[in-house]
Amino acid sequence: MMIIPPDDRGFTLGDGLFETVLAEGGRLRRLKAHLARLTSGCARLGLPAPAAEEAEALMREALVGARLENARAAVRLTLTAGSGGRGLDRPAVPTPRMVATAAPAPRPTTPARLVTASIPRNERSPASGLKTLAYVDNVLARREAQANGGDEALMLNTRGEIACAAAANLFWMEDGELVTPALDCGALAGTMRAAVIAAAPGAGLSIREAAARPEALARAEAVFLTNALIGVREVVSLDGRELRASPSVARLAAVAAQ
Amino acid sequence: MMIIPPDDRGFTLGDGLFETVLAEGGRLRRLKAHLARLTSGCARLGLPAPAAEEAEALMREALVGARLENARAAVRLTLTAGSGGRGLDRPAVPTPRMVATAAPAPRPTTPARLVTASIPRNERSPASGLKTLAYVDNVLARREAQANGGDEALMLNTRGEIACAAAANLFWMEDGELVTPALDCGALAGTMRAAVIAAAPGAGLSIREAAARPEALARAEAVFLTNALIGVREVVSLDGRELRASPSVARLAAVAAQ
Repeated sequence: MMIIPPDDRGFTLGDGLFETVLAEGGRLRRLKAHLARLTSGCARLGLPAPAAEEAEALMREALVGARLENARAAVRLTLTAGSGGRGLDRPAVPTPRMVATAAPAPRPTTPARLVTASIPRNERSPASGLKTLAYVDNVLARREAQANGGDEALMLNTRGEIACAAAANLFWMEDGELVTPALDCGALAGTMRAAVIAAAPGAGLSIREAAARPEALARAEAVFLTNALIGVREVVSLDGRELRASPSVARLAAVAAQ
Repeated sequence: MMIIPPDDRGFTLGDGLFETVLAEGGRLRRLKAHLARLTSGCARLGLPAPAAEEAEALMREALVGARLENARAAVRLTLTAGSGGRGLDRPAVPTPRMVATAAPAPRPTTPARLVTASIPRNERSPASGLKTLAYVDNVLARREAQANGGDEALMLNTRGEIACAAAANLFWMEDGELVTPALDCGALAGTMRAAVIAAAPGAGLSIREAAARPEALARAEAVFLTNALIGVREVVSLDGRELRASPSVARLAAVAAQ
């Protein structure tokens, strides 16, 4: 098993990034998009980007090691700033550390019940757009949602606009148009978010990236979550209030599953 | 050497806390205050708090293992939510993991040059008041300060008020009064911050915890940083502009060193 030394800056400071890739029958879905996001995240953090071949080899190794080549699985690739001395400063030349793990990832069979988190998402932190290892706010938001009868958190940014869910992006239908929070609202730059945006016109839907208040969800015809593992998942309630269903969700789920 | 498995939630999600304790000649300074903060942080994160004896034993072991019993050293105690499955949710009964490391910690001999960070501190996230493992914003703020000719970052909150430095609390003298950002401005609940607040009246200084704009620093008579390792460190410039020195800094440094 791979091990992490206690001076790894991913462990000590959350100084690193991760990707969670869906594997189906040994195929790593949207791998290019994941590696492109990892590369741009490395640039944002000031870390050297990994070689794509090395990253892919590690992920495949993790999949085989966990005997999940024939399963629906989540392969997680973690890249950290590597070992470092005490304190915030990286070594002059950081040597990133990369590890991969794999786990079964059955598709969720139930729709989601969202609860608005009390912790706002800091849309002006680069960590909002990136999958950094600093995910403790999301962990707490999810816990809070579960304590309040939900199964996922709706995260608003510091201006009170919708950002995303704790572990997913958010979309909804408004006046016949598909809407999702703009990236500068603090939305994670999700790979499935990008796929849905790209697929929408082909499904006969216009798409808008917007700054929106949570009240928009009460008016919406359909609200759904997306991420690499769940694909598209319908949201049936927000803070205990039922939301309106829509056939668009099923249609987009079919597109996203391609 | 202690090792961390790659499924540790501190590593994967920043789901944990740390304390950095100053050791001088084998004595762990302000240990009670550090362990009290760790305990309250655990409560905030929903994790069981460690036994004080176990935490202290680990720290002493790290100090001896690094042969630093007779040195000025930093002992870092890291507590994570332990190993967990994929995703944000903790196991039903998390088993925290605790590790300690020690490193030499010479006292800084130069005053600090602060540069204002472009990343705001999220004063409404519990992570702002706690030493969680999600420190990537601070890492980036420090890097930015260094790229701009400074050696430490001034972090403002989302309202534009002074919160703290990337790895220290901030104090200044204003109209004969000692001022420091209030905790609800996003200041870390620093052990040395608390010690300075407690020591100020004995040094003949009144103390005020406040929400303040960075302009206050330009007017201030003395600006200084505090943390467990540096004690008190004078700030000589902010964004390249010189700040006014004051004998109060030396006086408080002497008090804090006790």
